[in-house]
Amino acid sequence: MTAEIISVGTEILLGQIVDTNAAILGELFANLGIRHVHRQTVGDNQLRLTEALKLALSRADIVITIGGLGPTMDDMTRDGISAALGEEMVLDEGVQTTLKELFASRGLTWTETQNRQAMRPVCATPIPNPFGTAPGLICKKNGKTFIAMPGPKQEFEPMAKTSVREALMSAGGGEQIIHSVVVRVAGMGESIVEEKLKDLMMAEQPTVAPYAKQAEVHLRVTASGSDIAAAEKLIAPTVAVIQARLGHHVYGFGDTTLEEAVVNQLLESGKTLTVAESCTGGLFGGRITSVPGSSSVFLGGFLTYSNSSKQELLGVGALTLKAVGAVSPECASEMALGARRQLDADFAVSITGIAGPGGGSEEKPVGLVYIGIADREGCEVKEFKLRGSRETVRLRATQVALVFLRSRLMGS
Amino acid sequence: MTAEIISVGTEILLGQIVDTNAAILGELFANLGIRHVHRQTVGDNQLRLTEALKLALSRADIVITIGGLGPTMDDMTRDGISAALGEEMVLDEGVQTTLKELFASRGLTWTETQNRQAMRPVCATPIPNPFGTAPGLICKKNGKTFIAMPGPKQEFEPMAKTSVREALMSAGGGEQIIHSVVVRVAGMGESIVEEKLKDLMMAEQPTVAPYAKQAEVHLRVTASGSDIAAAEKLIAPTVAVIQARLGHHVYGFGDTTLEEAVVNQLLESGKTLTVAESCTGGLFGGRITSVPGSSSVFLGGFLTYSNSSKQELLGVGALTLKAVGAVSPECASEMALGARRQLDADFAVSITGIAGPGGGSEEKPVGLVYIGIADREGCEVKEFKLRGSRETVRLRATQVALVFLRSRLMGS
Repeated sequence: MTAEIISVGTEILLGQIVDTNAAILGELFANLGIRHVHRQTVGDNQLRLTEALKLALSRADIVITIGGLGPTMDDMTRDGISAALGEEMVLDEGVQTTLKELFASRGLTWTETQNRQAMRPVCATPIPNPFGTAPGLICKKNGKTFIAMPGPKQEFEPMAKTSVREALMSAGGGEQIIHSVVVRVAGMGESIVEEKLKDLMMAEQPTVAPYAKQAEVHLRVTASGSDIAAAEKLIAPTVAVIQARLGHHVYGFGDTTLEEAVVNQLLESGKTLTVAESCTGGLFGGRITSVPGSSSVFLGGFLTYSNSSKQELLGVGALTLKAVGAVSPECASEMALGARRQLDADFAVSITGIAGPGGGSEEKPVGLVYIGIADREGCEVKEFKLRGSRETVRLRATQVALVFLRSRLMGS
Repeated sequence: MTAEIISVGTEILLGQIVDTNAAILGELFANLGIRHVHRQTVGDNQLRLTEALKLALSRADIVITIGGLGPTMDDMTRDGISAALGEEMVLDEGVQTTLKELFASRGLTWTETQNRQAMRPVCATPIPNPFGTAPGLICKKNGKTFIAMPGPKQEFEPMAKTSVREALMSAGGGEQIIHSVVVRVAGMGESIVEEKLKDLMMAEQPTVAPYAKQAEVHLRVTASGSDIAAAEKLIAPTVAVIQARLGHHVYGFGDTTLEEAVVNQLLESGKTLTVAESCTGGLFGGRITSVPGSSSVFLGGFLTYSNSSKQELLGVGALTLKAVGAVSPECASEMALGARRQLDADFAVSITGIAGPGGGSEEKPVGLVYIGIADREGCEVKEFKLRGSRETVRLRATQVALVFLRSRLMGS
């Protein structure tokens, strides 16, 4: 069983967007044992799209297009499919009704343009799109399975993981599947990780490949087998070795985020958290509250961006600010202690630093960040020198704060 | 002058890496006036690579491969090129010498395997690779230009921006370059935007293409011309028409974000801001403080995730929470008024809602969000019903809050 993706969109060819959707689909193929041997990318041009579809249908069992399903003139995937498959286009009344209801519920005016999105080749069945207007399409003809998916990521991804996944499974997967487990590591640099795992990274089965992320390293452990269980059997011993060598730096697997790991630790230990953020301005709270169920442990927090808010909301001393400034271990300590006291939380994290691009000095350069962690006993402060743009420094500041908090919760 | 990219690598087809290199090259083509009409991706398979190369050579003037130039057995781009061009392979002694020197300087042992990287088709000239071992290759034959580039980003990107850029320029580049201006629109749905700009979107020069983002629409206005100034001359009148038709919904151009537009409005009007966030847990503050210079207008804020923090930090009434709950216009109003009062800000934004996936009911479904904006006169609250995952609802909540604040600042 082979599959081919056709990504549709001039914006991809012009380099205006990076094709992450194709990667998501590629991983899905691998997990289902479907061999993905070609991928094509074409612009919003019906003739070239039709040619690409014909080429794909000539060599793959499953062809999936991504993009070009919107209501506008340059969304021409439907017409391309109709031409490539030699199928007439019809208006799908069910889709039209759904779209009209959606527009009414949003208080939007229905226009004739929208009917484009309700058109489909005769052989095709619509795939519901709960996160957008354009439905997907699926069509089986001459032993081939043909699927069209919308391009916007928030519509594409849920459809890939539900309806399209099911359709691919029923189309019949393959004999050898490829399966990966991602081991997530924080608080250890990529080169040290590689040094510790050198021998594993030279092995053939399973393979171990490191990917450096913002202040984390992800290790992809991959094996092939007759099914996922067989592959996992090959993967498990390697993962165990990685855990033994990297210790508590391994914080999770798969899609688990560092914030999830931290929230779970708090839930398990029954502890509550608050935060006082200066240079990150809410990003730390935003990460914590991205975890469903975080309300059981996160009481709330303080965005004390100005000096006056640090004094008024957290009780940071005017003398401290005058003597050593807001970016100092002393201020970080007073922020964390003040926040903890105000909400009577078990732990308070404080973040104060210079995110840049302005505001740095020789003594306190851009990237200097202090993280405080207060508990009922007192406060511990660490200094970090982070590199990168304003955005990167802020993100890394939340990252090192999470790693610091995690190590405290593990009692190390 | 047309170009085609062939990305080589099984890891791309498996979805283990996202093909950012192709996007970099796509943008380079656009800036040099080279039409990029097809892109192919193939795995580490010599037969399929050779076929892909032949197809590309049959329809494009310039063909560039990315990846597959390493020393291992599955790096087969050199052999694929040799087969597709019908050219013998020879050992390039200059490259071999450079590689041997590089190995010696790094204290590495030279093995015969490394000779693979010194092989090239007879017609090809090596392109120096200062950041890695495998040189690129360039070859001109039968009026076509053929270029092979290494895959690792740290080697690919410098080569793209120097040697390859120069080679493309001397290959003729185009007489006609492509240039775009992005117009950013918020607070108006994609279909209404399209309805208002229908005629512009059907025009050939400049073209207007809409991209739906999370609760915004970006319009890319693109023209070709002899140089950027000539293209901009064609683009300007269309941008003026868009602004006239969409009014204050156009909030910026290019990379300007909505939060930048809002911070700039605050700076211009000399007003200060605070925020009280419940379901967004810091994301709104995070967006505002992502703007350099926001410290002049953003005083700080409150993450009142729990009911008790709403009462303690903002003075939300216990009766309000009991009678109508935290997700209510009354609570949004009291949150905004309390936050504004606490920090004596000109404006306070409050956000309270149900982000999901749990916590929804028939009366108060997931996605129900109230946004309050308080000033010295009082508070205005709006209700929103947002769709999508927890992440999307939270992001959209910050988006509608910014749009609401922006319209208040514009006095509309």
